Amino acid sequence: MAKVSLKDLSDKLGVSMSTVSKALRDSYEISEETKKRVLQVASEMGYSASPYAGHLRHHKSRTIAIIVPELNNNFFIQAISGAEAVARTKDYHVLVYVTHENNELEEGILKHLQNGRVDGVIMSVAATSKNVQHIEALMQCDIPVVFFDRICHEIETAKITTDDFASSLTATEHLIKNGCRDIAFLSLSENLSIDNKRKQGYLEALHKHNLTINEARIIKCNGDDKVNFRKIKQLLNTNKPDGIFAAVEKLALTTYEVCHELKIDIPAGVKIICFSNLTTAPLLNPSLTTISQPALEMGKQAATILLKHLEKKRATIANENIVIKSMLVERASTKAVAVV
Amino acid sequence: MAKVSLKDLSDKLGVSMSTVSKALRDSYEISEETKKRVLQVASEMGYSASPYAGHLRHHKSRTIAIIVPELNNNFFIQAISGAEAVARTKDYHVLVYVTHENNELEEGILKHLQNGRVDGVIMSVAATSKNVQHIEALMQCDIPVVFFDRICHEIETAKITTDDFASSLTATEHLIKNGCRDIAFLSLSENLSIDNKRKQGYLEALHKHNLTINEARIIKCNGDDKVNFRKIKQLLNTNKPDGIFAAVEKLALTTYEVCHELKIDIPAGVKIICFSNLTTAPLLNPSLTTISQPALEMGKQAATILLKHLEKKRATIANENIVIKSMLVERASTKAVAVV
Repeated sequence: MAKVSLKDLSDKLGVSMSTVSKALRDSYEISEETKKRVLQVASEMGYSASPYAGHLRHHKSRTIAIIVPELNNNFFIQAISGAEAVARTKDYHVLVYVTHENNELEEGILKHLQNGRVDGVIMSVAATSKNVQHIEALMQCDIPVVFFDRICHEIETAKITTDDFASSLTATEHLIKNGCRDIAFLSLSENLSIDNKRKQGYLEALHKHNLTINEARIIKCNGDDKVNFRKIKQLLNTNKPDGIFAAVEKLALTTYEVCHELKIDIPAGVKIICFSNLTTAPLLNPSLTTISQPALEMGKQAATILLKHLEKKRATIANENIVIKSMLVERASTKAVAVV
Repeated sequence: MAKVSLKDLSDKLGVSMSTVSKALRDSYEISEETKKRVLQVASEMGYSASPYAGHLRHHKSRTIAIIVPELNNNFFIQAISGAEAVARTKDYHVLVYVTHENNELEEGILKHLQNGRVDGVIMSVAATSKNVQHIEALMQCDIPVVFFDRICHEIETAKITTDDFASSLTATEHLIKNGCRDIAFLSLSENLSIDNKRKQGYLEALHKHNLTINEARIIKCNGDDKVNFRKIKQLLNTNKPDGIFAAVEKLALTTYEVCHELKIDIPAGVKIICFSNLTTAPLLNPSLTTISQPALEMGKQAATILLKHLEKKRATIANENIVIKSMLVERASTKAVAVV
């Protein structure tokens, strides 16, 4: 027998999924008449056979999901650790889901979570995500969502970010202060809130210091590692900039690999800075100047807000932008080099 | 109402949890009489109210758990990716749990999984784990477990490891070949199968090459990062060895930090090698010689065996040791240096 979902009941009854869900949980918001009708149809369609229906009605799972675009990135690992630490003190479990920057996978995961396997979700969206229907659908099942880092502006909920614009302005000014006049920006995806903010900060710094803005210096590195390697190699081979600001860590590491291959000295030939929480940043050759994000703190904040909401059982999470500052950590990759 | 567990039913009925579980799933292995008795007691005790009882009886969750000791380690990230890739092709979900090397947390997670939230488990045990009762209890609930990397020899199931002994022999011989005569071994935990095998390989190489075995050269780095830093600093400050073989990546990185602080040149002052899947190994200062483990492949194998078992619904997974070879990747940190 195929599993009967909330969506099936909602379609059959002609009411919203939220109404179905609330009716099944005997919410005071739903009329007795509607509850009766929902329960009858649920019974007829065999909804009680659904694996998690029981716990939707009887009690909560005391589990939250954290959905991240990749695991091979210290920022997300630290954010997960922060969320986990908070959850543990409240006796909640944390499940980790990875979208691999794939929107379809993200949609599949959120659909899977509709049946009440978790009480709430903390997420950072995939770089390919353009629409938000799958997130809205989950929230309509009364499963609250809190965003961190990569947020959806259009959805009303709590959003934890770092000061991407201001930090990018600082990062670009740091390169300018140390002698760069022709700075390239390595972008991950135009669909990402953080990528846009970081690009804006970069452009603002160029404008502030009367440097020419050249669209050709904004490199879209949204492919796989090999494609990105080729694009960055082309950039450094043809008309080398004197500074590179990478929106994300992995693009800075690829730039290092290209420089090693082309035997370009960092920082004499090109200076490099990026957003990163890489633990080996001080051990790289040369050590990498980073904008270090408060990843642990961001994960903690997201979990704190979500769990506070779940414990209080309030109807909604307030739409709120919480910004936690990043920090510039100067290392060798951006050092000013004496003119010989 | 407190949740009634399989354990409660088992205690009340005086039969094993496995029998209770099989009876509830109408297994042919259980007599009709026993089934009737189990169902009656389950009904009396309100077992059907259990959130996951429904799906234990009716259908599978199509979800497996992967339990790892830490996330901040590329080996585990790659193993998770491998398991995930296989699971996805079979339409299974993967939940990631982290024990933070804490045995109590590991026990809590396995207890939580007894109620059938997942169909099977892939795990690498925590460094503090000494006993295996919690793993046996999970398997008695008919939730199969497959081990990878850090295994429990005493449990009958599939165990995926790399050739820890042979690779450690190779790693140590590589140091000897490049001039080392006084090699220290950095150990993570005496309770770990891999740590013991790696130490044995190290000792074997010393023996083979007629080098003195000195127990004081085996450093137990089972504390937090600061404690390990202090121990390694003491080792390098007092009676410096000419080579270091770190059982795990994080101990090699701490050694790098100590060398940077003490201004000890790598490889002239000390050569360093370790088991590692660090993506930044080639970019470190100097680039780090590693024994690279087939992490992705190990995760894939573990998932393949587990899912094959789940699909076939066989009673047990064969006790099998599957060994996938690691590879020595020579880089600058172990280079032979010309005598001046």
